[in-house]
Amino acid sequence: MRNGNAHLFVPGPTNIPDAVRRAMNVPMQDMRAPDFPELTLPLMADLKKVFKTASASIFIFPGSGTGAWEAAITNTLNAGDKVLMSRFGQFSHLWVDMAQRLGLDVEVIDVEWGEGAPVDAYAAHLERDKHGAIKAVFVTHNETATGVTSDVAGVRRALEAAGHHALLFVDGVSSIASIDFRMDEWGVDLAVTGSQKGLMLPAGLGILAVSAKAMEAHKGSRMPRCYFSFEDMGAASKTGYFPYTPPTQLLLGMRASLDLLFAEGLENVFARHTRLAEGVRRGVHAWGLNLCAAEEKWWSDTVSAILVPADVDARAVIANGYSRYRTSFGTGLSRLAGKVFRIGHLGDLNEVMCLAALASAEMSLSDAGARIESGSGVAAAQEWYRQQVASSPATATRAA
Amino acid sequence: MRNGNAHLFVPGPTNIPDAVRRAMNVPMQDMRAPDFPELTLPLMADLKKVFKTASASIFIFPGSGTGAWEAAITNTLNAGDKVLMSRFGQFSHLWVDMAQRLGLDVEVIDVEWGEGAPVDAYAAHLERDKHGAIKAVFVTHNETATGVTSDVAGVRRALEAAGHHALLFVDGVSSIASIDFRMDEWGVDLAVTGSQKGLMLPAGLGILAVSAKAMEAHKGSRMPRCYFSFEDMGAASKTGYFPYTPPTQLLLGMRASLDLLFAEGLENVFARHTRLAEGVRRGVHAWGLNLCAAEEKWWSDTVSAILVPADVDARAVIANGYSRYRTSFGTGLSRLAGKVFRIGHLGDLNEVMCLAALASAEMSLSDAGARIESGSGVAAAQEWYRQQVASSPATATRAA
Amino acid sequence: MRNGNAHLFVPGPTNIPDAVRRAMNVPMQDMRAPDFPELTLPLMADLKKVFKTASASIFIFPGSGTGAWEAAITNTLNAGDKVLMSRFGQFSHLWVDMAQRLGLDVEVIDVEWGEGAPVDAYAAHLERDKHGAIKAVFVTHNETATGVTSDVAGVRRALEAAGHHALLFVDGVSSIASIDFRMDEWGVDLAVTGSQKGLMLPAGLGILAVSAKAMEAHKGSRMPRCYFSFEDMGAASKTGYFPYTPPTQLLLGMRASLDLLFAEGLENVFARHTRLAEGVRRGVHAWGLNLCAAEEKWWSDTVSAILVPADVDARAVIANGYSRYRTSFGTGLSRLAGKVFRIGHLGDLNEVMCLAALASAEMSLSDAGARIESGSGVAAAQEWYRQQVASSPATATRAA
Amino acid sequence: MRNGNAHLFVPGPTNIPDAVRRAMNVPMQDMRAPDFPELTLPLMADLKKVFKTASASIFIFPGSGTGAWEAAITNTLNAGDKVLMSRFGQFSHLWVDMAQRLGLDVEVIDVEWGEGAPVDAYAAHLERDKHGAIKAVFVTHNETATGVTSDVAGVRRALEAAGHHALLFVDGVSSIASIDFRMDEWGVDLAVTGSQKGLMLPAGLGILAVSAKAMEAHKGSRMPRCYFSFEDMGAASKTGYFPYTPPTQLLLGMRASLDLLFAEGLENVFARHTRLAEGVRRGVHAWGLNLCAAEEKWWSDTVSAILVPADVDARAVIANGYSRYRTSFGTGLSRLAGKVFRIGHLGDLNEVMCLAALASAEMSLSDAGARIESGSGVAAAQEWYRQQVASSPATATRAA
Repeated sequence: MRNGNAHLFVPGPTNIPDAVRRAMNVPMQDMRAPDFPELTLPLMADLKKVFKTASASIFIFPGSGTGAWEAAITNTLNAGDKVLMSRFGQFSHLWVDMAQRLGLDVEVIDVEWGEGAPVDAYAAHLERDKHGAIKAVFVTHNETATGVTSDVAGVRRALEAAGHHALLFVDGVSSIASIDFRMDEWGVDLAVTGSQKGLMLPAGLGILAVSAKAMEAHKGSRMPRCYFSFEDMGAASKTGYFPYTPPTQLLLGMRASLDLLFAEGLENVFARHTRLAEGVRRGVHAWGLNLCAAEEKWWSDTVSAILVPADVDARAVIANGYSRYRTSFGTGLSRLAGKVFRIGHLGDLNEVMCLAALASAEMSLSDAGARIESGSGVAAAQEWYRQQVASSPATATRAA
Repeated sequence: MRNGNAHLFVPGPTNIPDAVRRAMNVPMQDMRAPDFPELTLPLMADLKKVFKTASASIFIFPGSGTGAWEAAITNTLNAGDKVLMSRFGQFSHLWVDMAQRLGLDVEVIDVEWGEGAPVDAYAAHLERDKHGAIKAVFVTHNETATGVTSDVAGVRRALEAAGHHALLFVDGVSSIASIDFRMDEWGVDLAVTGSQKGLMLPAGLGILAVSAKAMEAHKGSRMPRCYFSFEDMGAASKTGYFPYTPPTQLLLGMRASLDLLFAEGLENVFARHTRLAEGVRRGVHAWGLNLCAAEEKWWSDTVSAILVPADVDARAVIANGYSRYRTSFGTGLSRLAGKVFRIGHLGDLNEVMCLAALASAEMSLSDAGARIESGSGVAAAQEWYRQQVASSPATATRAA
Repeated sequence: MRNGNAHLFVPGPTNIPDAVRRAMNVPMQDMRAPDFPELTLPLMADLKKVFKTASASIFIFPGSGTGAWEAAITNTLNAGDKVLMSRFGQFSHLWVDMAQRLGLDVEVIDVEWGEGAPVDAYAAHLERDKHGAIKAVFVTHNETATGVTSDVAGVRRALEAAGHHALLFVDGVSSIASIDFRMDEWGVDLAVTGSQKGLMLPAGLGILAVSAKAMEAHKGSRMPRCYFSFEDMGAASKTGYFPYTPPTQLLLGMRASLDLLFAEGLENVFARHTRLAEGVRRGVHAWGLNLCAAEEKWWSDTVSAILVPADVDARAVIANGYSRYRTSFGTGLSRLAGKVFRIGHLGDLNEVMCLAALASAEMSLSDAGARIESGSGVAAAQEWYRQQVASSPATATRAA
Repeated sequence: MRNGNAHLFVPGPTNIPDAVRRAMNVPMQDMRAPDFPELTLPLMADLKKVFKTASASIFIFPGSGTGAWEAAITNTLNAGDKVLMSRFGQFSHLWVDMAQRLGLDVEVIDVEWGEGAPVDAYAAHLERDKHGAIKAVFVTHNETATGVTSDVAGVRRALEAAGHHALLFVDGVSSIASIDFRMDEWGVDLAVTGSQKGLMLPAGLGILAVSAKAMEAHKGSRMPRCYFSFEDMGAASKTGYFPYTPPTQLLLGMRASLDLLFAEGLENVFARHTRLAEGVRRGVHAWGLNLCAAEEKWWSDTVSAILVPADVDARAVIANGYSRYRTSFGTGLSRLAGKVFRIGHLGDLNEVMCLAALASAEMSLSDAGARIESGSGVAAAQEWYRQQVASSPATATRAA
């Protein structure tokens, strides 16, 4: 059963392009060489395009998205600061937990897992906060655990409606570079991502984009920090040198990855994610199953969390996929354990890979006792993909 | 359309295991180093296991299977020698053509493309050849163009029945290491393969196993040869050094590949090819289509040549697969052009990859105008694979 | 000038073995797969052998050695705790700086850069601290900036002589796996290293070994921490799963690296570092130059910091090496800028590579105006290496 | 002794650039894909630039330089044809041997090994051949066994002086892409090279450039050929498709390699080879040793064959290099066994690598009993390299 390609459909780390893999296969390099900034400075500039920001400061920390979350908090806030967060999945839960452990006074809005960030509730809280006690508002753009994408622009509008000056922090780990994210247009003050999702790299980098307003807040922040401090790392974006040894391969891989993203065009990348995701969703619905995402407006284009029938254990589905069909699906986290399995559909992916995921899921579900008609999800996705490809000018021309 | 993995389902070069790919990613090496034979001599010994021969001599030529064909002829025969060959597909055709161009007197048995080697006709010719004019009998074990596997043991029986002493030459390029091949048991005198099929390597090596009887014939052979001569290359199997610079990476890759084949067990490798192939064939039949292979006894476990409906151009199927679905199918060669497309299912492959091939083929067929029910072939294969995996002791245990 | 291999002689990242590079060249993997711990748990066990500890807890953080320093402090101490540190180079300086920024009350012993950890001064401070106010004693085992190795066992003896119960923390970033380090024998409570030095991996991991006593102290530690917290990461050493996505390639590379270290034998690895370093030092002395390390007892086997003549700017030496001879030397940090250049001689290295470093350094020095006899350092090192190789049983036999 | 980089100084396979290595690290590809010629056709066009020909036909055979020699003969001549060859080293000897085995009537001019192609003797033979019996004149441009480069233009002048119309065939295996070669200017009719020398690729390709006149001769050639036939392979240069499965990785590697050669500029590549080779030669002379090449005009810029003192066995030098110093030197072939060792200095190489070769050779010589002053050869080469680099506008600017 260990023959052939492994089929990786976890929502990160994602499949990475072969060109990126190749770019990282290098001897070690001197990270203090005079030409090292020729690699690093353009990365900083190009990441701004990915975040869709003209003026934010970029920080690349060796670490992970979790580390970037921590950098966000410890560099801009102070212990005891009130912040407003919502919780609707494992990753928004973990960010709340971190904020609390780092000493923030977190006002948590809990909603059902499967729903998105509650824009109205944000609005209500902000409206009530007449004296501006809330220093920052946190939103998880894409909740990886439930496959839910939230309305960040809506939260910005809520801030504006309330005339509130809190900072707006966004976790874009599983959205940025896959789902449209508009830092400047949405007035995001600090956005966080990691290397192992839409950037199609191995894990190992936590990345932040920080607005001028958040950099201003930084000046007043006195939380203990060192490794993740903006002070130490800030120089990197100017000099191109890191305060400690950076993982150079990942930076070389990022160069290749950004080149691919820009060659495809970010808007095309987003459209591709939507197209591929829609095929998966049509497959799921053809099986007679539902997404964890409660409403269509929240459907995530990077990951689908799929509710299994009540008499099926989603863990068995995942175990079957792995041991019988060399396929990795995402598990149900925390309260969703056993209830959902997830198909990650972000990064370097195409139609036939998604069909393989559906075919494998069908077998894994059936083996776990679900009554799934073989081929039904595949067929629904095939119809969608055929229709899409037929209407694409590129392939229409080529097929002519 | 260039995102994600390319889906390679040509019958060679095959998908290669990542471990093999890694093993070939090396700096250049000194091919006259004292420890170089520690790499090469065990390869020779282990290739014998793959050919299932205890005593044959192994030759590894930088080149291709075509080069190995030429080495077979020029090292053992003489211009004007009569040989008996059959022709039932493009590759058996090309071997006949080479034999003629190299000056052999070829008695060709032509049968319909889609049939296998005509054992009865071989028997009749051999029976008639009372004076032993036929110096060698050639059989293509697996005709890659039509997806037909022939009965080599049957030809040996025909030789025995006729009491004929001709040499038995076999083209095992697309069978050896994927389909059971038994050099000694079948009395094969010379078998030929290449690196880019069941050995799961890039193209670049032509490999021969030569019986003692064929080596005896070699002594009387006076055909002009140099690059492909057994004289020059023969030393390699004793000293481990090559007469000219060998492609060391391929030899390192072969080490990794043979290790994988033996770890899985050759009989398990063959069973896997049968299992995966059968899924593909069930898919084809579920579409209502037929194989080019005329009878079940000839079905090849390494490649299926699929007859498209009369009103469909197989070239359009292949073009759709490539341009729309990032999938490479094998084309119809020569007289089969436009009539068949081929799915290679050999080498480093698993169930979900075969389902991906079927799903992609369904879309490519439909786009080309074939009336194929979406998902139908996938479903038939899924049922087969699920049943097989359930009855496998390994996965049954693991799933328990 | 960009042809051929770059010659990397910075003291980290080090040259990595090709087998390690290959091991990291893999597709992405599912870090929650059931067999993932088969990779990770043995790593934890094997790292203990490298630290020479039977019972310490191992933590592997995505980050760097700097991150590991921070983890050491924030998980075991509290703001305001008094700690004893010495400062004799840029890295011991930076650790002091971090301790201060994280709120510790640091008693700093400053000695000349070029000297090692002042064991007598440690003893005096500990002797004076009758009430045990000092919670932890920090020692930099190998100061990378000055090429100085300190006597950790001596500090342990000082603690014992004073009957002091402070924790003993050691920065082993540029020593562990290259220079003998004996956690249990020396009573080290917490040792820190990174991936990009003796472990011959890219940067990207900070690694800690923590004694039971330090783990006990951890229970009383209330410093804010999250990313680098022992609580979250502690489970990894038991379950083999990480609290956030780990850089799987680095873990695969570590498997290959540890296999190489154990195959060579740790004591042989240390002896090799000593042998190679001694050749470099003989070369330096043959030039008539001196090491920054003030006494022979402090000479580091992983890096030599070389004092250039007073009328030469070491920055020019380094610039010449890079731009003219494709060689990276380490720079003089902070107060040593312009006064020293450094040759890193740790990791995957051999005699001829060290001779290349010396040859390149000779040219770079001469081009910068130093009066160095061409070939003089190379010759001195050659004599040493020839003598060593001649006395090695392995090569003596082989050459016989 | 297996730590660190291996030092490869055989005259092929050569060290290959990391970019080339990366380019070859790919999944298998469909060699009949519609876009495959986008890779192959530009290679054909660009190889012409390397051969310095506007109009020759290019053939790329999977095989080796030896195979390309064979293709040259069997595609243009006929058994019994008289050809004129000279023999002054193992490779010119082997080409003579091949020509004889393939049935040519070879007029051999033997000169001392260490001398170059005897232009005057060629002239005399051609002068005498009033009736044009000689169909082709063969010249080994660079004799790899003795480190001798010959005057191909001189042989062309001899042909012209004699008004002789024989074809001019050149073995450029170890010269082309490293030493200036001018196919059109010198009136070469057929030139042969391999992938593993100046093209900085692994072994596996034999490459020919064939003039219109030689293609005309091809029409009259009736030698048996198939694998290496111009008929079958000729289509490749028009369609971009190969008659049998090509080693795609090598073609991808060639793309990368040609890009590097053109980026550096062919004339700069040649100048670099001259500069590096001169350093090696100065080192040899500083040792008090002589080159096998009898006169300066024959010194090869790709390989130096070094005569060891009479009381030293060159095989011991080579064995010491390999077993003690991880260095591969070229051995003395045939009658030169024990008398010379060779340093290959072609391909992807730089000054410090050459110094490493010299340093390693000094130790290997001394260990074998030669009285060599340590560092003496290194010093001589250092002086040369320093002087060269100082006068280079590029580095002069950078160092300013």
